[in-house]
Amino acid sequence: VKVRLLLEYAGEAFHGWQEQPNQTTVQGTLSEALTTLLTSLAKRNGVAAPEIPHIQGSGRTDAGVHARGQVASFTWPASIPLDVPRLFLSLNAITPRALSILKVEQADDDFDARFSPHLKCYCYRIIQRRAAEGLRYKRAWRVSWPLNLTTMIAAAKHFEGQHDFSSFRAADCSAETTIRTVLRSEIVRSAEDEICYFVYGTGFLKQMIRIMTGTLVDVGRGIRGPDDIPAIIEARDRTRAGLTAPPDGLTMEWVRYLDRQIF
Amino acid sequence: VKVRLLLEYAGEAFHGWQEQPNQTTVQGTLSEALTTLLTSLAKRNGVAAPEIPHIQGSGRTDAGVHARGQVASFTWPASIPLDVPRLFLSLNAITPRALSILKVEQADDDFDARFSPHLKCYCYRIIQRRAAEGLRYKRAWRVSWPLNLTTMIAAAKHFEGQHDFSSFRAADCSAETTIRTVLRSEIVRSAEDEICYFVYGTGFLKQMIRIMTGTLVDVGRGIRGPDDIPAIIEARDRTRAGLTAPPDGLTMEWVRYLDRQIF
Repeated sequence: VKVRLLLEYAGEAFHGWQEQPNQTTVQGTLSEALTTLLTSLAKRNGVAAPEIPHIQGSGRTDAGVHARGQVASFTWPASIPLDVPRLFLSLNAITPRALSILKVEQADDDFDARFSPHLKCYCYRIIQRRAAEGLRYKRAWRVSWPLNLTTMIAAAKHFEGQHDFSSFRAADCSAETTIRTVLRSEIVRSAEDEICYFVYGTGFLKQMIRIMTGTLVDVGRGIRGPDDIPAIIEARDRTRAGLTAPPDGLTMEWVRYLDRQIF
Repeated sequence: VKVRLLLEYAGEAFHGWQEQPNQTTVQGTLSEALTTLLTSLAKRNGVAAPEIPHIQGSGRTDAGVHARGQVASFTWPASIPLDVPRLFLSLNAITPRALSILKVEQADDDFDARFSPHLKCYCYRIIQRRAAEGLRYKRAWRVSWPLNLTTMIAAAKHFEGQHDFSSFRAADCSAETTIRTVLRSEIVRSAEDEICYFVYGTGFLKQMIRIMTGTLVDVGRGIRGPDDIPAIIEARDRTRAGLTAPPDGLTMEWVRYLDRQIF
């Protein structure tokens, strides 16, 4: 039996998605919570403690990156009856408050949050003002340079389509192929002092959106032109793109699985 | 010369407004920053280091309570020329990122953020859902009981007007009079899973809004009726009201000074 989770989390409370020794991570926290629950359920049912299922996430968010709609999945052990409403309450009760399990559902056997084809939406939030972050502390990148929205909108459009994004990946990115498809890349003014950058795609390279954001801010500041973007993409050279924007501003907004009607 | 500050801060980063030994507070942080700046400016101007001005706030927010529009004021020492734009940049540069100095202005000599007559608006944010807080962690009170919005709206109305709010103040509240005027007391649905409680008044007792919120949630849960509120007010007895809602959900939204056109 497959179980699917819909998750919301505050990135500043975790060292990213992926389990790591001696670090609080989202995957590690969920894995620990499941271990506790399954061990106690196995005892109550008089069966041997099951192997702890491996939890897949739709994407491995970096340390400090937030999620409003991350999706995860795992295989529930056959030896223990699955009680979905109870699992929802138990997981929320034993995980930290910065991690919210919004939904728990039984999924099709062939569902896998990571490998089932899906579309993801990320949002990068930029505050443009001279004053410090205040209430948006750890939830946005505050820049004090004036930003030209028109040139940023034009620059963002150049990312749309299928490209080799080698210029926009972390040095330690281990992806086998660097070809990715960006379905939409859109700059929006979200408040008087705030800009949101929305990116939609089926998958992204490590730090890709943060490097794209850093490069778009260079355009907004006027130190690059919007039409420099195609040449930076073509160069396939990380040193040609801008700085990596801090993780604080990035949120995984939602995931849609393309072959089924879920969440 | 009087200086007025408009401040935004994330409550979880401070032990409240009021300066305290060995605690990071908003007033203490501003006072330290001013000391640093004035000492360095005095040296540069070849004058004796001035006395550190006392900083007044429009209200003393509790530990964990946020502000989107707190107002503060202090007297700038006569021996040092005041450069407003420079003071704005310097204060933002040397205070933590969770404290934002949104505006710095020269004010009338008789202006005092605390004692000049003003109207304040607070908002208390309640999440009503079974899942944990997630991205609203430390910024809202999450309750899992179903809440009846209609009875809460009716109950909130009873707080409007001039009353003795003895039933709604902290045990250690040292206010001389317990009479306060609530100009508006309003429950609003702000999202599918979120309720905001807006309170407008010229001043509040210690923890008054948090105790009013705790009592309104009792009404929403159905363990009190909306028409129990007048009797609780009349009793002038703290034990008759509900629990004190946690500070996390409360934000000082804005302050308007009634005798002048500012901010």
